[in-house]
Amino acid sequence: MNEFKATKALVLNSGGCDSSTLVSLAVKEFGADNVITASLYYGQKHDKELKCAKDIAEFYGVKHIEEDISCVMKYAGEVCSLIKGSKDELIDKSYAEQIAENGSPNSEVPFRNGLFLSIAAAYAISLFPHEEVAIFYGAHADDAAGNAYPDCTSEFADAMDNAIMIGSRNKVRLIRPLINKNKSQVVSLGLKLGTPYHLTTSCYHGRDKACGVCGTCRDRIAAFKANHTRDPIDYEIDIDWEEDK
Amino acid sequence: MNEFKATKALVLNSGGCDSSTLVSLAVKEFGADNVITASLYYGQKHDKELKCAKDIAEFYGVKHIEEDISCVMKYAGEVCSLIKGSKDELIDKSYAEQIAENGSPNSEVPFRNGLFLSIAAAYAISLFPHEEVAIFYGAHADDAAGNAYPDCTSEFADAMDNAIMIGSRNKVRLIRPLINKNKSQVVSLGLKLGTPYHLTTSCYHGRDKACGVCGTCRDRIAAFKANHTRDPIDYEIDIDWEEDK
Repeated sequence: MNEFKATKALVLNSGGCDSSTLVSLAVKEFGADNVITASLYYGQKHDKELKCAKDIAEFYGVKHIEEDISCVMKYAGEVCSLIKGSKDELIDKSYAEQIAENGSPNSEVPFRNGLFLSIAAAYAISLFPHEEVAIFYGAHADDAAGNAYPDCTSEFADAMDNAIMIGSRNKVRLIRPLINKNKSQVVSLGLKLGTPYHLTTSCYHGRDKACGVCGTCRDRIAAFKANHTRDPIDYEIDIDWEEDK
Repeated sequence: MNEFKATKALVLNSGGCDSSTLVSLAVKEFGADNVITASLYYGQKHDKELKCAKDIAEFYGVKHIEEDISCVMKYAGEVCSLIKGSKDELIDKSYAEQIAENGSPNSEVPFRNGLFLSIAAAYAISLFPHEEVAIFYGAHADDAAGNAYPDCTSEFADAMDNAIMIGSRNKVRLIRPLINKNKSQVVSLGLKLGTPYHLTTSCYHGRDKACGVCGTCRDRIAAFKANHTRDPIDYEIDIDWEEDK
């Protein structure tokens, strides 16, 4: 294999803890001028995460791309509660509980990460035709645990990395700095890097304040507690940040 | 690996010879009621292929999906002459000549097949959540020869098949019936299956009649000549169908 030495970074940013930590990492490694962030709206019921991703790009002074690709997810509401028009309601249970009951979380968006990474690859080849590009991909160990989201596993990332390498004539690769970290370790890294967590959002409901009870809120709260740190965003419920998780 | 037994087929149809042959094959194997065809408009300078794909779906009485995904290829005009707004002109030379001169054909659309297959996977999971689905993929040996289009190679298809299997929890796979055939062999198969080649289009220019001189016209003409058959579409130039290719 040829040696791969990226000079540009493209970060998919959903406005959450994980991808925002990635932005911090990419800026540190490549410099803000060589980083582009991208957010994709795929028809989710709220679009708060797009605003957060934009705020984070402004915080770091990096170029930001936002695109509405909801046309390609128009049938996904049949199987996923996150999509506008879906008859399913979000379930306020942890991933582990949902998997035990239903085999998969009803927040799983069909092949979302495959689609996102393919779009990122097309952007990378188009925007930097004469450079090598690292696509920063934020899947981490908790997302993959128990096959909660199969498109967050290391095996999936390897397969997509392989496809992207071949399809780009070895000019684009996936970088997965978080794949062996759990969410607490991701937050620990971000706290060291100065990630602006006050600008991020995680709650599936997308209201002004985070609900504090949905699966993703629970995971986020636990991650900050494990770091003995108060999460800087506001919650609708009282949370005892001193209490063990 | 679990045994995979698809009951539904999804065919990506660009309106050309290869994918139309695939539609014939899928209808023969699965029956028209179990086949869906999909066409994606990605910003190409002409959209004649969309009409052809729709006509072929009507010919077979299969459900057809058409989607405009040009938003995700908006930067592709920088590197690809097929995209609206591109400053590059199409080159009327064979792929082999273009590769010898420039390293790649300027008709290469960045990561197009990765994107198309990811969208097909998302459709397959959403539309048939309780069935196994075969995505019919029309890459053939001539596309891959000399790495003309790296995203048409067998290695690329293997990588995407792997990603799609993992991301769909083993419910969706890529089927590649043409991957070891050259274009003459594809046309030979289609002629046996009764593929309605009179409804197809291949020419990069997308005018009423095919130009007969662009790379894809040359390849198509040669494939029909090799089968000692007159191509049923009209050409702007006179072609001696008796002459050896």
